[in-house]
Amino acid sequence: MTTASAPVVVIAPDSFKGSLSAQEVAEAIGAGVRAAAPAAIVRLCPIADGGEGTLDALLHAGGEVRRLQVRGAAGTSRDAAAGILSDGSAVIESAEIVGLTDPVGTAIAVENRSTLGIGDALLALLDSGARRFLIALGGSSTNDGGIGMLVALGLKLYDADGKEVEPVPSQLARLARVDVAGLDPRLKDIHIVAMSDVDNPLCGDHGATAVFGPQKGVTPDQIKPLDALLGRFAALFEQASGRSEANSPGAGAAGGLGYALLMLGAEFQSGAQTVADYIGLDAALKDADWLITGEGRSDAQTLHGKAPFIAAQRARQAGVQTSLLSGGIDRAALAPLQSSFSGCFSITFGPTTLDNAIANAAGLLKDSAEQMTRLWLSGR
Amino acid sequence: MTTASAPVVVIAPDSFKGSLSAQEVAEAIGAGVRAAAPAAIVRLCPIADGGEGTLDALLHAGGEVRRLQVRGAAGTSRDAAAGILSDGSAVIESAEIVGLTDPVGTAIAVENRSTLGIGDALLALLDSGARRFLIALGGSSTNDGGIGMLVALGLKLYDADGKEVEPVPSQLARLARVDVAGLDPRLKDIHIVAMSDVDNPLCGDHGATAVFGPQKGVTPDQIKPLDALLGRFAALFEQASGRSEANSPGAGAAGGLGYALLMLGAEFQSGAQTVADYIGLDAALKDADWLITGEGRSDAQTLHGKAPFIAAQRARQAGVQTSLLSGGIDRAALAPLQSSFSGCFSITFGPTTLDNAIANAAGLLKDSAEQMTRLWLSGR
Repeated sequence: MTTASAPVVVIAPDSFKGSLSAQEVAEAIGAGVRAAAPAAIVRLCPIADGGEGTLDALLHAGGEVRRLQVRGAAGTSRDAAAGILSDGSAVIESAEIVGLTDPVGTAIAVENRSTLGIGDALLALLDSGARRFLIALGGSSTNDGGIGMLVALGLKLYDADGKEVEPVPSQLARLARVDVAGLDPRLKDIHIVAMSDVDNPLCGDHGATAVFGPQKGVTPDQIKPLDALLGRFAALFEQASGRSEANSPGAGAAGGLGYALLMLGAEFQSGAQTVADYIGLDAALKDADWLITGEGRSDAQTLHGKAPFIAAQRARQAGVQTSLLSGGIDRAALAPLQSSFSGCFSITFGPTTLDNAIANAAGLLKDSAEQMTRLWLSGR
Repeated sequence: MTTASAPVVVIAPDSFKGSLSAQEVAEAIGAGVRAAAPAAIVRLCPIADGGEGTLDALLHAGGEVRRLQVRGAAGTSRDAAAGILSDGSAVIESAEIVGLTDPVGTAIAVENRSTLGIGDALLALLDSGARRFLIALGGSSTNDGGIGMLVALGLKLYDADGKEVEPVPSQLARLARVDVAGLDPRLKDIHIVAMSDVDNPLCGDHGATAVFGPQKGVTPDQIKPLDALLGRFAALFEQASGRSEANSPGAGAAGGLGYALLMLGAEFQSGAQTVADYIGLDAALKDADWLITGEGRSDAQTLHGKAPFIAAQRARQAGVQTSLLSGGIDRAALAPLQSSFSGCFSITFGPTTLDNAIANAAGLLKDSAEQMTRLWLSGR
């Protein structure tokens, strides 16, 4: 820490899901810091961890939005954002195309949802010349093993009578043969980075369906049969392609979309680390005095690769202390959180409801950040 | 602020009314500070502002409790605490004897409550040799003009037929004559400090009944007649005694108990200032690095002589920064509060209910103080 009169404060929060984007959170915190320290040099670096908001965070560092027509998880066509970054990399966010927060996609049962739209986006971006892809896997509503994406890219599924099989889990019982001949030939020349912190395999007790299915609507009774159907598809696909990835770490990410991407040669990277690299967080932290990060709710999971934790790690490497400002903090997790954060604070100023905190999140963030900054300055 | 490795932290909170005593609040905050800074020198100085908790705060600085039999606001006898401080001063806390939180006293209508018990306590302490009295006026449930206390001390009230009148407001319509001859002669030799920040007169639009009556149960219709009855008593009393105090600042404190004390020659002092002096807050702040204060709820009223504000003033005089940690903070008052406090924080870690915050206040205080201390240390 320097003792200069103008402190340098880096503000690198994740989004407050269902309330504010990471950019909005960063702006509100920045306003609070400036209110307490008008001379402060404030650097806004909104972050993300490979889930909802990842596209926004990457674009904030430089790039342009591409609006694409793609199929949502329910198979109906819709408009969705993708991005082309300054280095030419194309960004696809699963949460934006087949997201858990899309009411159309989640209105149908999980066994009828597909990732066709991820394939649609890949094709459109291939057509526009992209050859390097960053695909954010967090926040999907699908559990189709990435079959939808593969079919959009040219994979064919047939039943025993040679009829085509629709690429949704509920139809896979009929699956008899997988034909890879029609896969888009350009896929051989691309590089895919899959952004995910999940290292689960495709199937089994630690697989996509068993571990992540329930939060997408998979009932306890459905887990075994759905898991078996994905396993059956993988066996046929691997036989046809001569490649095997069902047991690779990450195959179980995004309902098995991770598996399909691994079969296309994708490399897995931590979402938060990739975003931190792209937005230049290390450069922003150089000569900084303080990092403020945060998220909607912080608990023990925060320390498992979530964006605020990665930001704190980067800050520690730069010799900068980090404080946490979140919508809520799980008090039971304070002890482990404290090993990464110099002070964990909530945006609330007393007893209040969740609805109230969400409705007033921007103002609460600003006011809380101002109080934190006043206390921090008083220690200087 | 020194840069020594062992920071000196003074912890001077008021009580969290209905939840924790000032001592308990101070201990919880102290535990949090020590958890973050094991080497810190922590000085616990629980404070009060002349209301509930004032006796405890004064006794914490040195003295002994006296258990007395006194009448409560409803007139029934009960056990109550008073105190004798190291310098021989006797302490009577109105909230302890005729308090708003006493369910027996407030079960009867305000026009039938009396301060007889304050007189009982004065007499008992006079009997034990006390000649200097500190009387804390905050938190009373009575609006009797202090008539109850005066009658306990020997004043006589008569109606036009020469019959005695009971010393409660509802009987004062019969009052025709006040006789001061029987007042305890020892009252001439005593010194009374009335601890109160109220400067209202006894009667009128700014008087006890109009301003403080409603919070004690005085209905809008009752204000004028009750106010007139107190005025009528004062006129007869002043005629009989040759002294006039009805318009003096403070006469309207504690439902007019302030008036009765002024008639006995009491000197008014700010409750918080008196407590701060007695507990030696200035000495504790000497060479200190940080003051943490707090109260159940902080709002714009905090800046009108409440204990946390007085503590912050003393700290400023000593060159020490003050932070506020309260059960809740009125966000609308943050701007003025910030001129006194370097950071205003609530004990909550996210959306929660008031009941939950009260039930877990000690743990929340400790955890919050720990977070504040970690942030404060990170700035050092």
